[in-house]
Amino acid sequence: MLIVQKFGGTSVGDLDRIQNVANRVSETKKAGHDVVIVVSAMSGETNKLVRYAEHFSPNPSKAEMDMLLSSGERVTASLLSIALNEMGHIACAMTGRKAGIVTDTAHTKARIENINPKIMKSAIKDGKIIVVAGFQGVNENGDVTTLGRGGSDLSAVAIAGALKADLCEIYTDVSGIYTTDPRIEPKAKKLNKISYDEMLELASLGAKVLQNRSVELAKKLNVNLVTRTSFSHEEGTLITKEENIMEKPLVSGIALDKNQARISLVGVKDRPGIASDIFTKLSNSDVNIDMIIQNKAHDGTTNIDFTVPTNEINDAKAVVDTFVESGDISADSYNDKICKVSVVGVGMKSHSGVAARAFSTMAEENININMISTSEIKISMVIDEKYAELAVRSLHNAYELDK
Amino acid sequence: MLIVQKFGGTSVGDLDRIQNVANRVSETKKAGHDVVIVVSAMSGETNKLVRYAEHFSPNPSKAEMDMLLSSGERVTASLLSIALNEMGHIACAMTGRKAGIVTDTAHTKARIENINPKIMKSAIKDGKIIVVAGFQGVNENGDVTTLGRGGSDLSAVAIAGALKADLCEIYTDVSGIYTTDPRIEPKAKKLNKISYDEMLELASLGAKVLQNRSVELAKKLNVNLVTRTSFSHEEGTLITKEENIMEKPLVSGIALDKNQARISLVGVKDRPGIASDIFTKLSNSDVNIDMIIQNKAHDGTTNIDFTVPTNEINDAKAVVDTFVESGDISADSYNDKICKVSVVGVGMKSHSGVAARAFSTMAEENININMISTSEIKISMVIDEKYAELAVRSLHNAYELDK
Repeated sequence: MLIVQKFGGTSVGDLDRIQNVANRVSETKKAGHDVVIVVSAMSGETNKLVRYAEHFSPNPSKAEMDMLLSSGERVTASLLSIALNEMGHIACAMTGRKAGIVTDTAHTKARIENINPKIMKSAIKDGKIIVVAGFQGVNENGDVTTLGRGGSDLSAVAIAGALKADLCEIYTDVSGIYTTDPRIEPKAKKLNKISYDEMLELASLGAKVLQNRSVELAKKLNVNLVTRTSFSHEEGTLITKEENIMEKPLVSGIALDKNQARISLVGVKDRPGIASDIFTKLSNSDVNIDMIIQNKAHDGTTNIDFTVPTNEINDAKAVVDTFVESGDISADSYNDKICKVSVVGVGMKSHSGVAARAFSTMAEENININMISTSEIKISMVIDEKYAELAVRSLHNAYELDK
Repeated sequence: MLIVQKFGGTSVGDLDRIQNVANRVSETKKAGHDVVIVVSAMSGETNKLVRYAEHFSPNPSKAEMDMLLSSGERVTASLLSIALNEMGHIACAMTGRKAGIVTDTAHTKARIENINPKIMKSAIKDGKIIVVAGFQGVNENGDVTTLGRGGSDLSAVAIAGALKADLCEIYTDVSGIYTTDPRIEPKAKKLNKISYDEMLELASLGAKVLQNRSVELAKKLNVNLVTRTSFSHEEGTLITKEENIMEKPLVSGIALDKNQARISLVGVKDRPGIASDIFTKLSNSDVNIDMIIQNKAHDGTTNIDFTVPTNEINDAKAVVDTFVESGDISADSYNDKICKVSVVGVGMKSHSGVAARAFSTMAEENININMISTSEIKISMVIDEKYAELAVRSLHNAYELDK
């Protein structure tokens, strides 16, 4: 097999851990696999460099930030390659440039445009272990770029796609994806397999492990992703396409998002295009709308409720205020003491009654549901924040996810 | 003027010092000059990375070492550029690659083959301050290389040559070149100007400031070098071609080299080619011979005395032993309690009596001269190490260098 293994900052957090990673890579190579390694900067290094830059400027120039921040991954890649060579392997460290990772010119948040895997392929053919500095590429001007938060995961997935690797293993300090947050429900179980779409819906469970950008890229490139821990040999969770999952569970997991606020607009004037007008302006202000409910009031006006991430309340309020001032909206109110609980599972596509069970479970616990939204594979409910944990545990139990 | 300024590790040793460098660069730019800056890694960084590598391997792979070590200069260059941008300048950080520095493929001790100054020239034309990461280039395979010890000075001199800069200022924690080591003779005076050749002969005075490789390159490229300190605005020492020095002093300085050992070979068989044989084998063992004296003894054999750097005694002894074993040499002895004192000055080319004064000064102090060698601009004497400081002070006084 050809396996891409990505080791995050905590996995390479100090010299002993880098040696530990070298040992793991060595095992994989000795088992007869071809391996391409992608590494992050040693944990704390990137933050240190950001602090250094901020010492000089509150808004440091972006091309310089990329030259600065890309150095951390180069250090880790060189050290791991040195360790592997010392162990008798033939390893070679590669920068993003050498690995053929070409990005657009958006410094500090570049997008990978394509990967030219020629040099990597030839090194693999020669039996070499490739160690790529993650998080970075090179743009058309020949300048180094970085890929933003979670960038090393993106490097790994893109490389796995370009090389048509059998597996792309993402090593972190978390052992995989669980049916729900084990800190809320200790009976939560690790999932063996999950589809890309489920993973995207369960983002709140996986956020510490995998960003949606990486899952989306894996889905697009059809890369089999595994998240697992570098601190033990415990099996992780495979994230793959739905067709690869034989036995589809009704429900895979329960996600909780406390980072949501509800905005209520009362007495919205009933003229054509007003809702479109409001939401277009919110979008232009980079406010991310999640759920929306619209009700006609008895006086002919409309009430609109929607949710936004908590840290975007102020931006949203600034937009709403202009409509209040113009008289298009008579009143607005904001509530950040809410949360969103979601039941996710590909199985619900072909089974009925999943939603009904969620609602009755809430009713049994006397939890009032404020808003509901559903998709093919998800039921989301907005409830008062104080019921968050109770709701998660009740739903986890109702769908027997501990079994 | 176009000025290349190079700041060494101690000058950029912490964030406040980097800001101090930014202030200096800003002054130069505001005075109406074009500036290209070359920076080293923050002091201690390169050593830290070397220690990291040695944690994994006593003999780390060289291409990886280059990728590892080149990161330190990139960090400094980015930070300085960020600081300059914040001060309202338009600065851009460049790696060795971006600056067009092409080297051979000898990782960790690469030689600069050529510089393509196109990108730098265009940036200067746009009024930008260029900040180049020193110590590094790129080889024909596109891999980063490093230039070995003193590499950032070489980068600066080579860039100054390629851009035909008016000046190349090397900033360190030392304020210039002195007539002799001020720790030995407190009356030592800083030299305003000195020729390349004098500087090369005075290496022991300048070693802390400038390596001979850089002076040789400056001579070859006809670059006006200035060594000065970044910690004050004190003028430094200009190292330039002899024709630029109007008033040529008889003697410019007194150099002392305690790092020399004398090897005496007694009863060397008098057959053709034996001396050549001995010195060829020493050279093959990378032993650097400095001075040689050969005397016929009354029994027809020859005595050969020569000096080598102290840390090469063992290598030299290994070679000599083979000749002793074969009977070509009857006895050998080693003395590392010697030193070499040199009187250097371009003026002695056209004046007689300079050497005579050196010998009589030694005689007045009852210092026995073991070996003598002279060149057009230098008189070197090997004496007992215990007289080293006395000899330096006496010669400094005899040539009135404190005046």
